[in-house]
Amino acid sequence: MNSNNSDAGSSGNSHDGGGNSGRDGCTTLLLARAALTRLMEPSDLPGLALIRLLGPEEALGFIRSSNTTNPGVEQEMTEVLQDSGTPRWDGLAAALERWRPRLADLAPERDLATVDRLGGRLLVPEDPQWPQGLADLELAAPIALWCRGTAPAIPAQERCIAVVGSRDSTSYGANVTAEITHSLVQRGYTVVSGGAYGIDANAHRGALSATAGGTPAGPGTPQPATIAVMAGGVDRFYPSGNDELLRTIAGRGLVVAEVPPGTNPTRYRFLQRNRLIAALCQVTVVVEARWRSGALNTARHAEMLSRMVGAVPGSVYSANSAGCHRLLRDGAAICVTDAADVAELAGGAGENLGTEQPVEAALYDGLGTSDLLLLDALPLRTATTLEKLCVVAGLSPATVLSGLGRLESLGLAQPGSGGWKRKGQ
Amino acid sequence: MNSNNSDAGSSGNSHDGGGNSGRDGCTTLLLARAALTRLMEPSDLPGLALIRLLGPEEALGFIRSSNTTNPGVEQEMTEVLQDSGTPRWDGLAAALERWRPRLADLAPERDLATVDRLGGRLLVPEDPQWPQGLADLELAAPIALWCRGTAPAIPAQERCIAVVGSRDSTSYGANVTAEITHSLVQRGYTVVSGGAYGIDANAHRGALSATAGGTPAGPGTPQPATIAVMAGGVDRFYPSGNDELLRTIAGRGLVVAEVPPGTNPTRYRFLQRNRLIAALCQVTVVVEARWRSGALNTARHAEMLSRMVGAVPGSVYSANSAGCHRLLRDGAAICVTDAADVAELAGGAGENLGTEQPVEAALYDGLGTSDLLLLDALPLRTATTLEKLCVVAGLSPATVLSGLGRLESLGLAQPGSGGWKRKGQ
Repeated sequence: MNSNNSDAGSSGNSHDGGGNSGRDGCTTLLLARAALTRLMEPSDLPGLALIRLLGPEEALGFIRSSNTTNPGVEQEMTEVLQDSGTPRWDGLAAALERWRPRLADLAPERDLATVDRLGGRLLVPEDPQWPQGLADLELAAPIALWCRGTAPAIPAQERCIAVVGSRDSTSYGANVTAEITHSLVQRGYTVVSGGAYGIDANAHRGALSATAGGTPAGPGTPQPATIAVMAGGVDRFYPSGNDELLRTIAGRGLVVAEVPPGTNPTRYRFLQRNRLIAALCQVTVVVEARWRSGALNTARHAEMLSRMVGAVPGSVYSANSAGCHRLLRDGAAICVTDAADVAELAGGAGENLGTEQPVEAALYDGLGTSDLLLLDALPLRTATTLEKLCVVAGLSPATVLSGLGRLESLGLAQPGSGGWKRKGQ
Repeated sequence: MNSNNSDAGSSGNSHDGGGNSGRDGCTTLLLARAALTRLMEPSDLPGLALIRLLGPEEALGFIRSSNTTNPGVEQEMTEVLQDSGTPRWDGLAAALERWRPRLADLAPERDLATVDRLGGRLLVPEDPQWPQGLADLELAAPIALWCRGTAPAIPAQERCIAVVGSRDSTSYGANVTAEITHSLVQRGYTVVSGGAYGIDANAHRGALSATAGGTPAGPGTPQPATIAVMAGGVDRFYPSGNDELLRTIAGRGLVVAEVPPGTNPTRYRFLQRNRLIAALCQVTVVVEARWRSGALNTARHAEMLSRMVGAVPGSVYSANSAGCHRLLRDGAAICVTDAADVAELAGGAGENLGTEQPVEAALYDGLGTSDLLLLDALPLRTATTLEKLCVVAGLSPATVLSGLGRLESLGLAQPGSGGWKRKGQ
């Protein structure tokens, strides 16, 4: 943040708070971004274009002022939107009309005080702790993140794994989720999920189970075990049945939202929330999902961000695995069966140790074709002659002789009365 | 076969049986190939190179003659082997030494009589009914196929699906296999598998269950429901516990082997047999396989032949699905959950009908972002004002007004006292 840099105000960036410098610049920046998170819905691209052009404080001032006719700003916004793949938009006047009704409700000081009282803070892109992975969202990156919890920061993308799935998980899905997330945290990863029933809740519980018993993680904790990304405000735990769980996460991990305190979750905000989960994580794992499930939306976001997607397979008779199988069939996800598979997808150095299952020692692996043919030809009980072995194995006498030597030394053949037979097994 | 072409002997192909023409040429050709299948193990590449160079009759005569010093033939064999990706071999003298011990045991007339007595025949590459898919095996294509059964021919590769898996299948694997193969036969496909316990047997039973009750299929049957490809002779049903099943397949489908009657299955022949299953089929489906399973060998053959491979997912806790998940994880197989998925892999015209599961009608699918925001903002019980809707939805009054019109026409919004509220749901 600018508070770390007293020269921030004189750095020549005319958009970065104008005349406000030092501590004041930081405060007005926080207040402006706090206000903008209430003014604009998530992924409001014209709004985000305006913020990119003018900086948060000036953008807020621009919206507050009555000057709606600014062809220069509108033209620049159009260019930013075009560069971001949004060739058509409804224009500045329409956007201002959309934002203005909410101007009267802005109370950024109150919102910042609320999150402060909850033991959290507003994380802004200007903060060095801002998660770099969100940059891949480009223009749709959030204005700021309201964070509630004692964890010092959201870990780097490389250490975060999203584990998502359907609300109506089966006991199979619950077990797999708990095992994978527990093991991921043990391997040093942070689990990221939503706050829903089912797989989301299982993921958080599995992650929490891998950290120290009942002791809340202190500020010295290297990274949180789990992060819940909410569609509503961080003071509005939804669904209420997960209230206790989300309270625990706020105490021992992080609860995060891009909408300000007091905001209700809506369908639109749930869908937008999913892009944050995907963008914060190196890998998104779908444990269970029906043919049509919100978890698939998160997987699609991850795919669009070129992040790895893993899907856990299950019974073909389970409707709760149909979405996972769909992802696998479409090549949109890699098959993962345990935390080792997930860690390998995340590409962590040394994390793929132990992924390969121990293969039973195969006695015949080192044998060449002719020795294999010879071994097949050797009788188990009564020894047979060299000539008979040639016929049965389809090998020349020289090959049979040298092969018998090799098989004997491996303990697979033994000479007997009148010839050779199998040994061992 | 040459019997269809009385000019065959004068066609100028000096390798094609020499002075034998017409019906005699056909007989000597069958006898030569029958003998060669006993002389050479499957995929004996030097032997197959010799047959390619001289034709079957002359190759057999060459081996029978005592002339081992033929630098011209050896050089040509080396070139054929090099062209087939086998740069090194042990030379003609070593190969002759390998084949000669079996010369005394050759009795092709007896073998042909045996398969004739069993109601079968020897299918040779010169026959128009020779499966074209075997050509993809290149030099490793079989010398001939011993066929037992009433079915007129092995169907074209496009109509054949291999369904393979482990011997110790679970009830889950047995059910999935039976359902998939039953449905594949109903869709006009022929199932191809081995003769083992477990998935192989389940595949044949499922296929047979889709054809007319106890009536053996007559010669007029368009194509067999199922084909068992054996590692031993077609008169040696292995394992003996599948004797009755294999007898049924011989009666209503086809039992096929590249080794002559009386031949025992060996480990080597099992592995070679797998390449035939893969080559005969458009798609190879692995239903259940342990981490290390013979079925994965068949899948590898299919992959090397650029054929599609499907793997059925299962519980991550089932060791019998670990091999399937391994294939999926490695990208060596596509996830298939039912016959429709398999048929789609096979690419049959119109076969992918019904693959897409019916998606529950999603009321909100057609809505744009602003209408979705508006819908989220509409209260369920007490109507709210236009101004309030603008604030809650974050939309301009004009957008809210036009949106309310659309939502009302969709039956999703209704005007009430003092404003608007949600309708339906």
